[in-house]
Amino acid sequence: MKPNPIAQRIQSSFDQQDFMQTLGAKIEKIEEGKVIISCNFQESLTQQNGFFHAGVMTSIVDSACGYAALTQMPEGKDVLSVEFKMNLLRPAKTPKLIAIGQVIKSGRTLTVCEGWVYNEDQSKLLCKMTATMIAVER
Amino acid sequence: MKPNPIAQRIQSSFDQQDFMQTLGAKIEKIEEGKVIISCNFQESLTQQNGFFHAGVMTSIVDSACGYAALTQMPEGKDVLSVEFKMNLLRPAKTPKLIAIGQVIKSGRTLTVCEGWVYNEDQSKLLCKMTATMIAVER
Amino acid sequence: MKPNPIAQRIQSSFDQQDFMQTLGAKIEKIEEGKVIISCNFQESLTQQNGFFHAGVMTSIVDSACGYAALTQMPEGKDVLSVEFKMNLLRPAKTPKLIAIGQVIKSGRTLTVCEGWVYNEDQSKLLCKMTATMIAVER
Amino acid sequence: MKPNPIAQRIQSSFDQQDFMQTLGAKIEKIEEGKVIISCNFQESLTQQNGFFHAGVMTSIVDSACGYAALTQMPEGKDVLSVEFKMNLLRPAKTPKLIAIGQVIKSGRTLTVCEGWVYNEDQSKLLCKMTATMIAVER
Repeated sequence: MKPNPIAQRIQSSFDQQDFMQTLGAKIEKIEEGKVIISCNFQESLTQQNGFFHAGVMTSIVDSACGYAALTQMPEGKDVLSVEFKMNLLRPAKTPKLIAIGQVIKSGRTLTVCEGWVYNEDQSKLLCKMTATMIAVER
Repeated sequence: MKPNPIAQRIQSSFDQQDFMQTLGAKIEKIEEGKVIISCNFQESLTQQNGFFHAGVMTSIVDSACGYAALTQMPEGKDVLSVEFKMNLLRPAKTPKLIAIGQVIKSGRTLTVCEGWVYNEDQSKLLCKMTATMIAVER
Repeated sequence: MKPNPIAQRIQSSFDQQDFMQTLGAKIEKIEEGKVIISCNFQESLTQQNGFFHAGVMTSIVDSACGYAALTQMPEGKDVLSVEFKMNLLRPAKTPKLIAIGQVIKSGRTLTVCEGWVYNEDQSKLLCKMTATMIAVER
Repeated sequence: MKPNPIAQRIQSSFDQQDFMQTLGAKIEKIEEGKVIISCNFQESLTQQNGFFHAGVMTSIVDSACGYAALTQMPEGKDVLSVEFKMNLLRPAKTPKLIAIGQVIKSGRTLTVCEGWVYNEDQSKLLCKMTATMIAVER
């Protein structure tokens, strides 16, 4: 099986994000236009009620959206978040977050993605993101 | 000088947010309707270019907005983020983030806040947030 | 066939929105948690390039989201938009807009909806909304 | 007094937006990075409680933001809204809306603006927008 160059590029960029290591986040899946990132519960990631902090969910789903956009960009391009909006729907009481980023419109300059953060078995939607990404020269 | 009960409530809630300790964030100022939180640079908080991760900025400015809302709520109430929107304006190349949260409209149920994240000397606006908070029983 | 009281309530509220008549908008479908509103092209609704103005799309999809929320509220309640976010994905070059509002999380106080505006045959997504609605006493 | 070419460009683009005429909106002021648009009350612009429809406020403040961005763009460029977010703060019970759009960060490709809609005497903030604009070739 030959290696997938896009997946390598994304994994390598992800590994350079020290903050993703701080969160203990990892890439679960990379498809054309879609990336899934998970994050296991740790006390160090909690807000005042002992659940995952909204900032943790935002961080991983923003990354999932950015890498989803990157799957559709030419070699040599990188992607930056221009803006995002999060709706926090339920308390993040779960042993593991599953964040999905998916492209809904890709363009030469801008790519719009949607993101979802679910609980461990994906039975509950915890938050919903919409994000705009811009392609930049690496 | 008598202690400020609102400031104590906010500091105590902040201290219970383990994620704020993970980020090394601290409360700089608490005023009626306004809270400032700072965060020093650490490698553990970076994205792939070595700057602060957008998720770090989001986490502290969301907290600043939430606590700004809390300054205007009656005893016994807590505050949760309903939604927020961030515009990322510049790369976060700075030794220290300064996040300001400020109430623009407070209501019985919902409070709307604006947030700004600046570089160390507040000469550059790095991102802009608008957030909606809801009052809940503690 | 007995009349559907929710559909009647929504149609009656819609008929009281003079701005919907100004736009020539009409309700196409009302289901549990989902409402579809359409709007035919008129010169009076255009922006500088002769396409539908973003404000027209926003108006009808915000209404579709609000009424989608209302389908899940008890008798005697009304719904107001707290906030919404729109991503404009393509120029709105179409003889007819189709706006869909759908509840993604309903609560006692707040309901979160997603909205989509499509071209006439729903082959192109023109914009995407996320909206937060609040239940109020009528 | 010599004519201001930017102001002429903006007024001429505004005059081509038939929807602005439908709303009865007019440009009140054009400054570097800031544009003000007003809109008088008409029954034809109301929602179900007889106040200005949120879609009317969105339409004029989005235009104010777009033209504010245009004041800082080179000749030959036009501006399109990429996305915006509105927080609706109070019922729009006023004989006249005053919408202000202001650039907070301008770039070669993207410009970020903030918008405010006030009541007639600007004593009450009715809604708050944040918008991202993109420069395109005319």
